[in-house]
Amino acid sequence: MGVVVSLEDGKHRDASVKPLVDKTRGDMDRVNQLILSKAGSDVALIPEVANHLISSGGKRLRPMLTLASATMFGYTGEAHVKLATSVEFMHTATLLHDDVVDESDLRRGRSTARMIWGNQASVLVGDFLLGQSFKMMVEVGSLDALDVLSTAAAVIAEGEVLQLSVAKNMETTEDDYLSVIRAKTAALFSAACEVGPIIAGCGKAERNALRSYGINLGLAFQLIDDVLDYGGSSSDLGKNVGDDFREGKITLPVVLAYRRGSEAERAFWREAIEGGQADDQSLEKAMGLLAKYGSLKDTTMRAEHYASIARDALAPLPDSDEKSALLEVIAFCVNRAN
Amino acid sequence: MGVVVSLEDGKHRDASVKPLVDKTRGDMDRVNQLILSKAGSDVALIPEVANHLISSGGKRLRPMLTLASATMFGYTGEAHVKLATSVEFMHTATLLHDDVVDESDLRRGRSTARMIWGNQASVLVGDFLLGQSFKMMVEVGSLDALDVLSTAAAVIAEGEVLQLSVAKNMETTEDDYLSVIRAKTAALFSAACEVGPIIAGCGKAERNALRSYGINLGLAFQLIDDVLDYGGSSSDLGKNVGDDFREGKITLPVVLAYRRGSEAERAFWREAIEGGQADDQSLEKAMGLLAKYGSLKDTTMRAEHYASIARDALAPLPDSDEKSALLEVIAFCVNRAN
Repeated sequence: MGVVVSLEDGKHRDASVKPLVDKTRGDMDRVNQLILSKAGSDVALIPEVANHLISSGGKRLRPMLTLASATMFGYTGEAHVKLATSVEFMHTATLLHDDVVDESDLRRGRSTARMIWGNQASVLVGDFLLGQSFKMMVEVGSLDALDVLSTAAAVIAEGEVLQLSVAKNMETTEDDYLSVIRAKTAALFSAACEVGPIIAGCGKAERNALRSYGINLGLAFQLIDDVLDYGGSSSDLGKNVGDDFREGKITLPVVLAYRRGSEAERAFWREAIEGGQADDQSLEKAMGLLAKYGSLKDTTMRAEHYASIARDALAPLPDSDEKSALLEVIAFCVNRAN
Repeated sequence: MGVVVSLEDGKHRDASVKPLVDKTRGDMDRVNQLILSKAGSDVALIPEVANHLISSGGKRLRPMLTLASATMFGYTGEAHVKLATSVEFMHTATLLHDDVVDESDLRRGRSTARMIWGNQASVLVGDFLLGQSFKMMVEVGSLDALDVLSTAAAVIAEGEVLQLSVAKNMETTEDDYLSVIRAKTAALFSAACEVGPIIAGCGKAERNALRSYGINLGLAFQLIDDVLDYGGSSSDLGKNVGDDFREGKITLPVVLAYRRGSEAERAFWREAIEGGQADDQSLEKAMGLLAKYGSLKDTTMRAEHYASIARDALAPLPDSDEKSALLEVIAFCVNRAN
């Protein structure tokens, strides 16, 4: 049953990703081998660029979700390892392209691939990983899993373009922003979880439960990430506090502070975000406004709302180590902000 | 039997893509409708960017190849229209990313999408089209077709990275260059043709025939494109004469002239291509060297070699309108250079 924690309120201080890590350790070893092998190529630049990001110490939460979502329904084959690797490759490809689009210098505390090898290599190696990802899915041979994952790929890209469209527009509503993160972050969490019951041969109820768990966990995860961007430290998060602000990225804390602010405060946000005046001095002022209007606290509360939905999505499923581990991941994600 | 032309020597002056266009007209109407519908999105930027390239008057040779490759074996269903659209979307996605990687200003005589909407939108809308492409393939539900097309996607991207690796390296051999275009151009031609017999339920012989036709047609097509870059006119080709040279791109005409040249001439090529001195004055000198060593003529001869293989690949298949049309496309592709 993993570590015994009170999960009801999602706030248990000791909640950890460790039960999920422990439960998926053997399969993750094979995922990690497959990642290295499928990122290989005679074209030396491909493994160089891919491994830079792959070895940079991401949590690999998504592939662990796929593995646990399959084994919790008694799945004992090999397909979940391939699909977990596919999911991680889709994620890695997205990060490579994201860093080009956002012109980011740092990711997980290291220089981005584009800073070392240029935008060209980042775009093309991302395309290669996406191609390898699809090849692996096809090898598994489940049309239902292919449907879920290929739909996610299109939705993610659509979400990225939507984000580009709403970028630097301070009139973005909370609903607009939710549409963006539902597509660009939550869709892959959801697909990563749903393919588990699919390859385990489960019915609609189990698929729906894992899909709902995944999408709501993804929303909570992204909202907490947005909070941490204004509150974590560079070494913890692998990026600098206020990166989103400096890049003129609109996230929920900013949406809330803007909408709750005075006319003068709204003018400040517009100048900073839309006018490109987001320097360190205005970051300080922004942090003050976020505090004044409780934007970080309330974004965390919104995340807890989605966390609750994720918990209830799993509620009807029989108890298992995997279910406990997945529930604890919800608490872990939300607690990062506390 | 279509237009009666002498195809044996591949040089018939009247060879045209018209028989293929005529034969696939009805199906292409449905492909074009599907292209518009699947490039649609509530995110307005997506159809804007996609339709800019889609409406720019490409020949849509690849989807026509898919359609003819299916109907020539008596296929009467709907899957070929979806796969043809998938193939065109893969191609369009590649072009969007290519223009970012090559920093191109013009394509088919118009400003590239990246010049109008920026690199960010070009990368992300390319990703979206790739996602939609995979979704359509999955809808068709043929794992064999999925295997061929997803493999092509990975190979294409690998070829693009390989091209990046050999870029501006004058020691590139003819074999190196062939590896690049086999991956980045011929692989999609090949996949576009092979999925026809697959969905028509044919055996290995027909699949192999169409795959071989496709890959060799693709090689011939790309080599002639390389020749035209030094010989066409801006209005004909939709780009300027010498664009490849100015971008420091190494193509077969340059490989041949460099290897056949004197030490002084090789120094010129290195300075121009590797040293970034490829201005209009050096283009003139380059054109002189290409003429001196018969590089354009010999590249055309190499293309004719692959064209012959493509013709022989189809030889054992029973006569049909589609077969005649596909044979004439070979002659058409090669004749563009004459």
